[in-house]
Amino acid sequence: MFEFRILAQDPDTGARAGEFVTPHGTVPTPLFMPCATQGTVKTLTPVHLEEIGAQMILANAYHLGLRPGADRVAQMGGLHRFMSWPKPILTDSGGYQIFSMADLRTISEGGVLFKSHLDGREIFLTPERCIEMENQIGADVIMPLDECAPFPTEKAPARAAMERTIGWAARCKAAHRREDQALFGIVQGATYPDLRRECADRLAALDFPGHSIGGLSVGEGLDLMVEMTGRTVERLPPAKPRYLMGVGRPEDIVACVAQGVDLFDCVLPTRCGRNGLAFTTRGRVKVRNTAHRADERPLDPSCDCLACRRFSRAYLRHLFQAGEMLGLTLLSLHNLRYYMRLMAEMRRAILERRFREFRKDFTEVRTMSDE
Amino acid sequence: MFEFRILAQDPDTGARAGEFVTPHGTVPTPLFMPCATQGTVKTLTPVHLEEIGAQMILANAYHLGLRPGADRVAQMGGLHRFMSWPKPILTDSGGYQIFSMADLRTISEGGVLFKSHLDGREIFLTPERCIEMENQIGADVIMPLDECAPFPTEKAPARAAMERTIGWAARCKAAHRREDQALFGIVQGATYPDLRRECADRLAALDFPGHSIGGLSVGEGLDLMVEMTGRTVERLPPAKPRYLMGVGRPEDIVACVAQGVDLFDCVLPTRCGRNGLAFTTRGRVKVRNTAHRADERPLDPSCDCLACRRFSRAYLRHLFQAGEMLGLTLLSLHNLRYYMRLMAEMRRAILERRFREFRKDFTEVRTMSDE
Repeated sequence: MFEFRILAQDPDTGARAGEFVTPHGTVPTPLFMPCATQGTVKTLTPVHLEEIGAQMILANAYHLGLRPGADRVAQMGGLHRFMSWPKPILTDSGGYQIFSMADLRTISEGGVLFKSHLDGREIFLTPERCIEMENQIGADVIMPLDECAPFPTEKAPARAAMERTIGWAARCKAAHRREDQALFGIVQGATYPDLRRECADRLAALDFPGHSIGGLSVGEGLDLMVEMTGRTVERLPPAKPRYLMGVGRPEDIVACVAQGVDLFDCVLPTRCGRNGLAFTTRGRVKVRNTAHRADERPLDPSCDCLACRRFSRAYLRHLFQAGEMLGLTLLSLHNLRYYMRLMAEMRRAILERRFREFRKDFTEVRTMSDE
Repeated sequence: MFEFRILAQDPDTGARAGEFVTPHGTVPTPLFMPCATQGTVKTLTPVHLEEIGAQMILANAYHLGLRPGADRVAQMGGLHRFMSWPKPILTDSGGYQIFSMADLRTISEGGVLFKSHLDGREIFLTPERCIEMENQIGADVIMPLDECAPFPTEKAPARAAMERTIGWAARCKAAHRREDQALFGIVQGATYPDLRRECADRLAALDFPGHSIGGLSVGEGLDLMVEMTGRTVERLPPAKPRYLMGVGRPEDIVACVAQGVDLFDCVLPTRCGRNGLAFTTRGRVKVRNTAHRADERPLDPSCDCLACRRFSRAYLRHLFQAGEMLGLTLLSLHNLRYYMRLMAEMRRAILERRFREFRKDFTEVRTMSDE
């Protein structure tokens, strides 16, 4: 029901282009997954997502479990049907959210006790309960409960979190019931190369169908993030897909594709879009900038999204100045389209054995000053 | 450049079906115009509007004049191009907004002095300046500056407002420069039939290409609103289009089509949509209602809009509960589609000489209890 095919491997780096087969369709890799945390990619309809070429999207079991409830999603036919998204979905377990959003938690070997960020309700979440919820929600790819250490973290607590993550991953695997859902293992280990290596080795031994790299992009900076990703990837079985969680900026993604990562997700394109920041092939554009008040140009002349096909920067600026929600929609749409095109171009470059040139061109554009 | 053709006249009422030819296309009447007050129908893209069959939309010269500025809209090629709406547009002058939103105004024969609701800037708006702005914005149909009396109003101030409105209408006509824009006359007169009649007669003598009925739906109630509309319509030249400003609920519109009104606008479908209230062929639906938490049905099984084609009430409720903007978009889209279909069905009924049956059926559904 799941298959990962590597179609091309860059000779100079770890970059690879492939296909990931899931019960809801085959997606090209490397792939960026837009975030539909609460069962909707913020401000966009599924038709918008289809138009920009979105393939697999990401939802969050912690958020959906609290509201509307995993059992409610199951009752409504599962998340694909509930949110009207017939293509693949991946759910994060919500480990990261629990450690970053929830209050008053105590972590034990058994699980994690926390108070909901919505109503303060106390919840004891175990690895088994986490998988039960993800089985109910019904995504194609699911994540185990993990413990994400903050940055920086001393080595002893980083090791403790890693040990707990491995123990919980084994329990999640034992509790997982659905063959039409692939449960990945999550590599933790903070910024300690030996912990990353050990975690990767021990998860590889558990024979998950794919691996996630968690706990990065939490403040450690681009260089350390890329290094830790590389150290992790080199210990993971090459034939299985690798998903770098919550990363990131376009430059982060290009650097980590070069390390051999296949799947990415990040709230950045939609969150920046809602804040009036656009990613373009010529650099970043702050839409509210006064300079755009009579600017007839589209955000990005080379972009084929609805925002760029039909609207000027002056109009988009007007929408933001006037507090009109359409501005948030159009910039979210544009930014995701930028990410989709970036991934597609990168994949083509790998397939055509010219990833080195692609990176060089990309880096040159990145060093241009933003508008 | 403008033409109004009446294709059918209901034998029992004043209802008529026609076509209104404008420089940006011919629209069917009776017609409902979605409100794009600030140059965008809130939460929707032009593609959404095209999909639901929107024809002519309404923008507001007061709002656009304050932000981004009428000269800026002109500089950007006019409103059609600025907002990417190639079909007809009507601009209200903003008389109503000045009398309902702006602060510290003084009204004189010359014009109206008010403070902007955005930044408190003091502005003296004359009929001539109003037309200059509407000429810059470039809508197909434009409104003169008028004085809208509140409800209730004593007769003397109602007459004074009416006299000022007529005087300003004549000055607007004299100031109007563009042949590709039709300037309508606005009938005021509060709820005094003799004032309404006098105003209609005196405006008819000024030979505007169409007439608006202003100052209604301000608290006077359905019956009085319909009566005043009827008293006004009976004095207006039948060959010219009639536009009832800011009205209203589906039942108001059906009643006023029967009085011979051709054009309508109202923020209700979009505003209600953003508040979680849906109009359906079976009554109104409060989407946040707990009853819908596991409701697999669409909002309206007979509706063909995106919200009804792809989503359950349970999902729409989830979006509102979770504070997701997509809910506002989907309900705005649905409500406008409901209005578009209502108008199309009414027009077909008039053309097929069965408007009486249409009204009877509509009234029976209206008296059903809402969900």
